[in-house]
Amino acid sequence: MAYYAVPLSKLIEQFERLPGIGRKTAQRLAFFIMDGTESQAKSFAKAILEAKEKMHTCKICRNLTDKEVCDVCSDQARDHGIICVVEDPRDVVAFERTRDYKGLYHVLHGVISPMDGIGPEQLHIKDLIGRITGDVREVILATNPDVEGEATAMYLSRLIKPIGVKVTRIAYGIPVGGELEYADEVTLSRALEGRSEIN
Amino acid sequence: MAYYAVPLSKLIEQFERLPGIGRKTAQRLAFFIMDGTESQAKSFAKAILEAKEKMHTCKICRNLTDKEVCDVCSDQARDHGIICVVEDPRDVVAFERTRDYKGLYHVLHGVISPMDGIGPEQLHIKDLIGRITGDVREVILATNPDVEGEATAMYLSRLIKPIGVKVTRIAYGIPVGGELEYADEVTLSRALEGRSEIN
Repeated sequence: MAYYAVPLSKLIEQFERLPGIGRKTAQRLAFFIMDGTESQAKSFAKAILEAKEKMHTCKICRNLTDKEVCDVCSDQARDHGIICVVEDPRDVVAFERTRDYKGLYHVLHGVISPMDGIGPEQLHIKDLIGRITGDVREVILATNPDVEGEATAMYLSRLIKPIGVKVTRIAYGIPVGGELEYADEVTLSRALEGRSEIN
Repeated sequence: MAYYAVPLSKLIEQFERLPGIGRKTAQRLAFFIMDGTESQAKSFAKAILEAKEKMHTCKICRNLTDKEVCDVCSDQARDHGIICVVEDPRDVVAFERTRDYKGLYHVLHGVISPMDGIGPEQLHIKDLIGRITGDVREVILATNPDVEGEATAMYLSRLIKPIGVKVTRIAYGIPVGGELEYADEVTLSRALEGRSEIN
């Protein structure tokens, strides 16, 4: 005999599909919805539908936005001469949190990964090349420091450098607050390589 | 400047309202919805709405169901002479998982808790008393072994015993697989008290 009536077990299944949510947590979340008011449940359902309906990619930088051109691209106070290339909209959020970066972004929505059948055509690379006009002074490659991220950065730098624009790669090193003792050899030697003079 | 466009930040807020879901997880879940298809988002929203719309309490035992009378109450193969009283629909699921219990349930939807302003009137106690007819041989009190659960069990036993029906309380003891060494004194002395002869 089933423990839950169909509508409840369907809701549990939906929560279980979410990343990092196991059976027990899914049950807890479903019961939380059951315990809440009908208007709370409606707000939740509406938020899901509206996020999916209204959000799309910015026609310039391909970051997620509910406008045609995102807030970053349309902000004239930002430096339109620098483009930071990232894999994912989440990476834009990470950079924005630093409050240090004032240039623009370009979101690839993935990395080149032949194993997964993802080539340059599947990414927003053509859009990126189209953006590199006379106004752009620098393209920062901020893909992840893993195999695919490195390969993608390498591919992009070969594509962009001939246009005659400065191409940079974010620094490798010891994370702030990290301990040398626990750093892996590759990171440590990259940190050494990237050392800078103290004035 | 806001990191997320409004529809996305609203969805993140909704996930953050869920128990045990922090800011970071809420963001991860919202992005999971963004990465999914529109039909997946629709199924999720629909599951929330339908669970809330279709689920209600069984008119007999007050467990959650999508029918007028739940599957347990309408199952003639079960023993209608025993009623197990629990605090919450989740407790019914816990008992059903044992596959040992074949009687009926009664869900109080809470416990007596003067601190939270919850008295007997706020619980489904009247319904329970109404169910104790000639057919019922035993009422098992399975509220939690905490202060409120104990007080509620005590209250119910005083109310039900005079009707002339057997009232029992679930056993206290060492959890199966638990270690004596780590058991608290109260549990241990209750386990000793409740010892049974080995045949």
